Amino acid sequence: MYEDRIRCAAVRGKITSAAQAALLIDNGMRVGASGFTRAGDAKAVPVALAERARSEGKPLRITLITGASLGHGVDSLLTDAGVLARRLPFQVDNTLRKAINRGDVMFVDQHLSETVEMLRAGQLGKLDVAIIEAIAITETGGIVPTTSVGNSASFAILADKVIVEINLAQPLALEGLHDIWIPGRRPHRDPLPVVRPSDRVGTTAIEIPPEKIAAIVITNKPDSPSTALPADEDTGLIAGHLIDFLQHEVSHGRMPSPLPPLQAGIGTIANAVLAGFADSPFEPFTIYSEVLQDSTFDLMDAGKVTFASGASITLTEKRQAQVFGDLARYRDRLVLRPQEVSNHPEVIRRLGLIALNTALEFDIYGNVNSTHVGGTHMMNGIGGSGDFARNASCAIFATKSIAKDGAISSVVPMVPHVDHNEHDVDIVVTEIGLADLRGLAPRERASLIIDNCVHPLYRDLLRDYYRDALRFGGQTPHVLREAFAWHARFQETGSMLPERNVAV
Amino acid sequence: MYEDRIRCAAVRGKITSAAQAALLIDNGMRVGASGFTRAGDAKAVPVALAERARSEGKPLRITLITGASLGHGVDSLLTDAGVLARRLPFQVDNTLRKAINRGDVMFVDQHLSETVEMLRAGQLGKLDVAIIEAIAITETGGIVPTTSVGNSASFAILADKVIVEINLAQPLALEGLHDIWIPGRRPHRDPLPVVRPSDRVGTTAIEIPPEKIAAIVITNKPDSPSTALPADEDTGLIAGHLIDFLQHEVSHGRMPSPLPPLQAGIGTIANAVLAGFADSPFEPFTIYSEVLQDSTFDLMDAGKVTFASGASITLTEKRQAQVFGDLARYRDRLVLRPQEVSNHPEVIRRLGLIALNTALEFDIYGNVNSTHVGGTHMMNGIGGSGDFARNASCAIFATKSIAKDGAISSVVPMVPHVDHNEHDVDIVVTEIGLADLRGLAPRERASLIIDNCVHPLYRDLLRDYYRDALRFGGQTPHVLREAFAWHARFQETGSMLPERNVAV
Repeated sequence: MYEDRIRCAAVRGKITSAAQAALLIDNGMRVGASGFTRAGDAKAVPVALAERARSEGKPLRITLITGASLGHGVDSLLTDAGVLARRLPFQVDNTLRKAINRGDVMFVDQHLSETVEMLRAGQLGKLDVAIIEAIAITETGGIVPTTSVGNSASFAILADKVIVEINLAQPLALEGLHDIWIPGRRPHRDPLPVVRPSDRVGTTAIEIPPEKIAAIVITNKPDSPSTALPADEDTGLIAGHLIDFLQHEVSHGRMPSPLPPLQAGIGTIANAVLAGFADSPFEPFTIYSEVLQDSTFDLMDAGKVTFASGASITLTEKRQAQVFGDLARYRDRLVLRPQEVSNHPEVIRRLGLIALNTALEFDIYGNVNSTHVGGTHMMNGIGGSGDFARNASCAIFATKSIAKDGAISSVVPMVPHVDHNEHDVDIVVTEIGLADLRGLAPRERASLIIDNCVHPLYRDLLRDYYRDALRFGGQTPHVLREAFAWHARFQETGSMLPERNVAV
Repeated sequence: MYEDRIRCAAVRGKITSAAQAALLIDNGMRVGASGFTRAGDAKAVPVALAERARSEGKPLRITLITGASLGHGVDSLLTDAGVLARRLPFQVDNTLRKAINRGDVMFVDQHLSETVEMLRAGQLGKLDVAIIEAIAITETGGIVPTTSVGNSASFAILADKVIVEINLAQPLALEGLHDIWIPGRRPHRDPLPVVRPSDRVGTTAIEIPPEKIAAIVITNKPDSPSTALPADEDTGLIAGHLIDFLQHEVSHGRMPSPLPPLQAGIGTIANAVLAGFADSPFEPFTIYSEVLQDSTFDLMDAGKVTFASGASITLTEKRQAQVFGDLARYRDRLVLRPQEVSNHPEVIRRLGLIALNTALEFDIYGNVNSTHVGGTHMMNGIGGSGDFARNASCAIFATKSIAKDGAISSVVPMVPHVDHNEHDVDIVVTEIGLADLRGLAPRERASLIIDNCVHPLYRDLLRDYYRDALRFGGQTPHVLREAFAWHARFQETGSMLPERNVAV
C-alpha cells in the first residue's frame, strides 16, 4: 500500500493512526511542526494530541514551534485543550491570540529567518519531536514536503523523532519543486550560494536517517484556503502610487529595468497591491518572497512574472483547484525553499529586493508597528517583514490610512510598539499617497508623511501634534505626555478622534 | 618631493594648499569625507572650507557624508561656519549635536553598513567630491588609506573628483593592512567571500583612475585620540556577569570554544568590558568589529586575541604612540576593511558573532534606545549597533543601571525611541546583573529584567508599573498614559524619581 508515496520499504511498517503517533509526545516536550501561512501544515497529529489532552485529564503542555501560521483551526484546538504552554514564531489564530493576550500562552514573536538558527545553536532547547506533512518518502527515506518548506527540514534534522503525515490530497506533482539547503554550523560556514531567484542549490527532499522516522500517518485533506480579501478601490490606489513611484525610480536610473526581485508580505493589502502590478508597464520581473499568494500566479498568467521563489504557496479556494490541478503550467517557474533561505539577510541584501509589507500603523517619523494593537495586544507577529525590510534595497510599508470607519488613524504621532524603526523604512504608502523617506531627517519625514499619507480626518490633528512637539526641540520632536493620547482615547472612547471632531 | 608618499608621477603636479583644494567644493554639493571613529579623517580641507565660508559671506552649505565620527573638532568648525546643511551617517560632536537638535542641520542617522549601498544605488543623490586621507598614492594611482577605511573606497569610486590628503604623521607602516573589497552592482552580485575574520579578499589600495585625483594636500597631524574612559568598578562587574554567562554557554554546548568572533561597539562601556576579558578563562579568540580600540590591543598583548578585523583603529594617546610606533608587532594580526564589509549582515550572520554594544536605556521588555536622550534629542547615532545586533548569534546590550547619580534609571517602563527592538536583543546586562531574554515571551522578560538588571532605587517603581500594566492585559502590557511618565518627570524635575523617593 502507498508504494508511490512511501518508497522506502524499511519505513512502511511505521504507518499508524494519528492517535498512536500523538503518544510519542509527552508533557513538557518541544515539538516542531510543518506549516507556513496555512500551507503544508501537519493536519492530523496535532488534532489527535488535542483530543488526548482533553480526554486524559492530566497535564499535557508543550512548546509548539512551526514555520509560520497553521490552518484548519489547529491552533484553536490546541489552545482550547490547554496543550500550548509556549508558541513560536508566528500565528494568525483568533482563539490562540486571545490566550496570548491573556498571558495564558507564552508567545515568542520572532523574525522568521531566525527560529531554526537559534534552535540549531541550542538557544531554544532540544527539539523532541518533529511532525512533517509530506507528499512522499523517497527510496532513501527522504521526506518530500507539500505546499510549504518553512522550517520543516531543520525540524526533521534536529528532532529526536520524526512523525510524517503523508497527505494524499497534496498532489505528487509537487515533487521536484522544493530546494532543500541548510547552512553549516557556525563559525565555519560557507556563503549561501543563491545569487538568482531561480537558483537551485540543494536537494528535492529532506534527507534524514530513515530510522529517525518514528511514525507515519496517512491523511487526505487539502490546505485551508487563503483568507485574503480581493482588491478594492483603496488597494488599487495604493498599487497606483507604488507603480508611479517605481516608474519614476527606473526612469531616473535609481532602479534597474527589469525591476529587482519583488517580495510581498502575507495578507490582503500586499496581495492586492501586488496583483495591481498586472497592469503595470514594467518589464517581466521575478519574485523572491516567503509566501506565494494568488497575486504571484495572476502575474505569471499576465506575463509579468518569469520566476517565483518562496517558502510556501497559499491560495484562495478557487486558485488552489486551478494551480494544483495544472501544476505543469507553473512548475518550471517555481521553487520552494526553507524559510531561512527565502528570508535570509544574505540573499535579500545580495539581490537588492523591493520589499512590500503591511503596517498596522506608522508614525510621523516613519516607525512602523506591524504586530501590537494599541501597543499591547498581539495581532499575528512580525513574520518575515523584518528580515525583508532591513535588507531590501527598497523597504515599502503599506496600509489604508484609516480603519474602523475612521475611528482609527493608521498614521499616529508615535507608534506604541516598534517593529521596524526609522532606520529600516524607505517608503510608506496609503491610498492617500506615498512618502519617500530615503535620505531625509526625521523633521523632513514628518512634514512629508503628514502632507502625503494621512487621511483628511486626521491631518490637522497630526499637524497640531507636530507643531506642539517642535516646541520641545530635538532630532525627533515629541510631546512625551501626549504621544499616546490618540491610542489612550481609542481605548477609552472607541475612537482616536476627540469628541469635537466626531460631532462635526 | 614626497616620492615615497606619491609614487604616481602623473599626479604629483596636483599638490596644492588646503584652501585651493577647498575651492573644488561649491554650495549645494554632496561631499564624502574619510574618517571613522575619529580615525583617518580628512584634517585640512574641511577646516579650509569652514574658513572660506566664514570669509566669503555667501551661502556655502553642503551635505557631508563620512564613515562615522570625525576628530579635531571638524564638525564643530563646519557647524559654526554654517557649512552643514545635511550630515550623515553618524557624529559625536557637541556643537553639531546642538545644531541637529535645534533643527539647523538635517541629520540622517543610518546603519553604518548601508550608507554607501544607498549611495551606489543613487538613492542619496550624486557624490560630487571625495576627500580621502591617505598615507600614500601608489604607482598606479591607488589611494592607501590611513587608520580607517570606513566609506573611503566607495566615496573615491563614486565621486566626480577626489581630493587626497597625504598625512605625513600617519606611518607608512600601515600599508598592507587594508583590504579593499567592494560589492558588485545588484541584482547580479556574488557572495561576499569573507568566511574567517582573517580572510583577505581585496586590494591594499583604493584603485581609481588617477585622473580623478583633482588635488593633493600635504598634512602632518595625528588622529584625535580616543576619549574612552578607563574601566571602573561598574564596568568590571558588567564584564564579570558577561564572562560568567559566556562560560555557562560554552559549558552547555550552546557556544563553541574558542568563542565565536567578538564585536564590541565604540565607547567607554564596550571598550572597558572587552578589556575585562583579559582575565577570562576563554581560549584565544578573534575579533570581527568596526572599531578596534585599546581593548583589542590589550587582549592581543594578553594572548587572548589572535586576530582582529575592523574598519578603523581608534586609540588613546598613550596607546597610539605604542601601537603605531611598533606596528610590526601587530600587523600580521590585523586587517582594516570598508565598513560595509566589517558591518555586512552577510558576514555577521555567517560568522555568528557575539555582539556587544552600549544601550542608552532599555525597557522592561528588552527594547533598546541607543540614540535619543529623552526620546527626542540625538546623542550620537545608531552607528553599527543595528548591523551587528540583528545578525549576531548573540546580541548583548550593556549599560550602567543608573546615570546622573541616580536621577536617571537606564531601565525604564518603555523606551521613548526604539533602535533595537525585542526581536533583536538577546542579552541585557548592567552592573546589577544580566538577563538572558532568548526564547522568552515579553511577560517573562519583564520579570527577569526587573529582578536582575534594575538599580534598587528603581526596582519597586518598575514592579509597580508592571503590575499596573498587567491590568490592561496583552502580549506586551503597558499603561499607555503612564509609559513615559518617568521621562516626562525628568524633563520637568531633573529626576525620574518621584519626590517621595528623593526625600527618603
